[in-house]
Amino acid sequence: MSNTNPARGMRDFLPADVRKRNYVIGIIKEVYEKYGFEPLETPSVENLETLTNKYGDEGNQLMFKILKRGEKLQQELEEGKITSENQLSDLALRYDLTVPLARVVANYKNDLPKFFKRYQIQPVWRADRPAKGRYREFYQCDVDAIGSKSTVVEAELISAVSEILERLEFEDFYIKINHRELLNGLLNECNIDENRRSDFLILLDKRDKLSNQAFVDEMHSAGFLPRAELFWELLVELDQNSLNVTRSDRSMTIEDLRDINRKRIQKIRNFLGTEAQGNNALNSLEEIFKFIPNVSVELKNLVSIDLARGLSYYTGAIFEISLTKGDFAGSIGGGGRYDGLIGMFGKEQIPAVGFSLGLERIIYVMEERGMFDTLIAEGKIKNETADVMVTIWNEETSAESLKAASELREKGLRVLVYPEADKLGKQFKYADSLGIKKLLIIREEEIAENKVKIKNLESGEETVVSRELAHSHI
Amino acid sequence: MSNTNPARGMRDFLPADVRKRNYVIGIIKEVYEKYGFEPLETPSVENLETLTNKYGDEGNQLMFKILKRGEKLQQELEEGKITSENQLSDLALRYDLTVPLARVVANYKNDLPKFFKRYQIQPVWRADRPAKGRYREFYQCDVDAIGSKSTVVEAELISAVSEILERLEFEDFYIKINHRELLNGLLNECNIDENRRSDFLILLDKRDKLSNQAFVDEMHSAGFLPRAELFWELLVELDQNSLNVTRSDRSMTIEDLRDINRKRIQKIRNFLGTEAQGNNALNSLEEIFKFIPNVSVELKNLVSIDLARGLSYYTGAIFEISLTKGDFAGSIGGGGRYDGLIGMFGKEQIPAVGFSLGLERIIYVMEERGMFDTLIAEGKIKNETADVMVTIWNEETSAESLKAASELREKGLRVLVYPEADKLGKQFKYADSLGIKKLLIIREEEIAENKVKIKNLESGEETVVSRELAHSHI
Repeated sequence: MSNTNPARGMRDFLPADVRKRNYVIGIIKEVYEKYGFEPLETPSVENLETLTNKYGDEGNQLMFKILKRGEKLQQELEEGKITSENQLSDLALRYDLTVPLARVVANYKNDLPKFFKRYQIQPVWRADRPAKGRYREFYQCDVDAIGSKSTVVEAELISAVSEILERLEFEDFYIKINHRELLNGLLNECNIDENRRSDFLILLDKRDKLSNQAFVDEMHSAGFLPRAELFWELLVELDQNSLNVTRSDRSMTIEDLRDINRKRIQKIRNFLGTEAQGNNALNSLEEIFKFIPNVSVELKNLVSIDLARGLSYYTGAIFEISLTKGDFAGSIGGGGRYDGLIGMFGKEQIPAVGFSLGLERIIYVMEERGMFDTLIAEGKIKNETADVMVTIWNEETSAESLKAASELREKGLRVLVYPEADKLGKQFKYADSLGIKKLLIIREEEIAENKVKIKNLESGEETVVSRELAHSHI
Repeated sequence: MSNTNPARGMRDFLPADVRKRNYVIGIIKEVYEKYGFEPLETPSVENLETLTNKYGDEGNQLMFKILKRGEKLQQELEEGKITSENQLSDLALRYDLTVPLARVVANYKNDLPKFFKRYQIQPVWRADRPAKGRYREFYQCDVDAIGSKSTVVEAELISAVSEILERLEFEDFYIKINHRELLNGLLNECNIDENRRSDFLILLDKRDKLSNQAFVDEMHSAGFLPRAELFWELLVELDQNSLNVTRSDRSMTIEDLRDINRKRIQKIRNFLGTEAQGNNALNSLEEIFKFIPNVSVELKNLVSIDLARGLSYYTGAIFEISLTKGDFAGSIGGGGRYDGLIGMFGKEQIPAVGFSLGLERIIYVMEERGMFDTLIAEGKIKNETADVMVTIWNEETSAESLKAASELREKGLRVLVYPEADKLGKQFKYADSLGIKKLLIIREEEIAENKVKIKNLESGEETVVSRELAHSHI
């Protein structure tokens, strides 16, 4: 017997899974379109040269490369001419959605609007070691606004992402916000050498996952403490005005909440003194807050100088969405301004702000928290295969059953027809296994009277109604 | 400058393309769900062994195989241990949606309903030589009903597919219908040897593309004529009662139309005499017609003994959708009963009927016929980026513009915000380039009066309205 599992690290989505995923994706699309983002789709397969050296060593290794085709390959192999992997492949599977976007921006320069706002929800592939929640094929869900340096763009993106999470009924999310130039300013003040800064940022990003003591120990052993003592003190000081308060204390007023960010920003300003880069970045963050029209959204943002988000990619504001409740304290998405990347295939620098939602993680958390069960109970996700199943009484009445099904479909109902004249009990059991709650029964006697019998599988109740009104009883 | 085109034979879909594709896919999904089909998704990548030798020699050659990863590969290459392509690959890109379905049916046997009706709309990859309308990544759009031998299933599938084409506003489609056992019966009567039958069917499939004379010539040179003289005569006879009549003559009544199929079936019966296999198959086709509840759908079906649909795959009824108007006389989809295939990964035979819509071809024809232009004009496809664009007057009024945008979004409108305080003329031009017809202008004077100015870009008309009512003017 052959192996019928999906390939390692890949998943089949059975109908109930697809329905949940489509619900989440549907809301994301709807909200992004409300904010004027347009859909883009690129091929799963890219020329290898398009992707090579765009993702560092790790990316080069984890990329799924596609074997060259044809007789020439076989001949070269037989002749022993091929001694390196590079000679074997000319294509690769998409590794993310950002490089394809950069390629599209360069390729259709004259067809795209000067501010190009696009969303893209498609799978990417990475030959990572599969683990809980880590797959080799997974969806990315990116939104990017290209072509403007205005902070209006950051404000709009934060608003859109917050609206998505609210629509999905996440009650405990907040958005950490920081700025790469603010970090630079702070590190200037701490006299951290230019060539140690990326190490510093990597360590900073780990703070979430470490205890305070472990973090301090790592800072010491990396040689950043005691030199960055002041930075560390600032972190601790800011923790005293953190959103932790807002999570539990619902009696706080909007002004109290806004005050927290004001105090945090003031503390950072005090620390920076006259350092120009950091102060400009703080002004920029304040401008973003000012532009967010919805107060409840504004208050979901927390200036967090311990957010670093990787290395060389970002150039301005950076964001990360966190959840506070339960075991799911990790990030479910993030983004920021990256003015150097989108122009990689052309000659000009093109400013851009992007946000990537962790679709797989969002779905995982929703599943774990029972949020899908609620959505199904509320009828927001239709989990049953059909609204009604039409049974088949016998061979002679089959055509009439199919006709009745057609009539119900014309009324907009989703109708399954049991395909065979099995015993009714068997048909009921089948409908029940698919979550279908209403059945239609048409025997000779119903046909003769132009009626149908409707059976409610939950209550067991049976009603005979005129055929024209059948739909209104379902 | 690097190459920024998509890989050979692959396509980028810019927003206007995605909107059209999503419209078509949306209708297909909606109709299939109305018929009780459920969505399934499988990974793009399958284990190579799952796909190998499932698609004949051509399939093995056209499959995109994925290179093995890791240091071991590089070492083996350097040591010259690899002399054949087979040692290089362990995974491949999905080649169709049927083999993955068979794998899923075997793998989740206990989780799937005994009659499993699924649709699946996902890309597949074939390293074919790219040509007009032939791509290396393209969507397949499959629907299959698994587990029943009842002709109810065929009738439901034909109804669903017809409803999709009607919803897409194809007016000239019809469905050729034939039966593999009817073909067998006819070939029995003509004394065509068992071992020549697949050649005969391949030739028969080409009839559409050949003139009558060319077809007869090929039949002769293949040695089927004069032996199959009677079959040829029957074909010609049936042509005299073809749907060609119905295409042009709209004055015919339903009974006239139904009569055509009756006459065709009668002619075939006369030809078959007492031949059992063919007669049973004809009964089965008549049963399918009887089960189709919608007369207009029934009449779109034409019994066509020159439809063969490939070789060994199908076991019962076969269908193919044709268009009659203009240059698009090819098929836009087809299917049939294949009771031997879905069980390939298990021990049992599992009956199945499937239909595959040629999504890329449907979209191509709709584009060529201007059907999308109509849908856009009717507002069924929203082609403009947003319902309204909010302009930005100056830095100081920006926050108020964003607030107004948020208010309009709350009313359900799709709202784009111009990100910068450019000259208004420049902002108007930008909105126009995106097809947006309404603009919102908010300057200090509007803010002071709690009003907004709405500009209609088509008429040039400007109206000042109270801010609360702005949405009702868009």
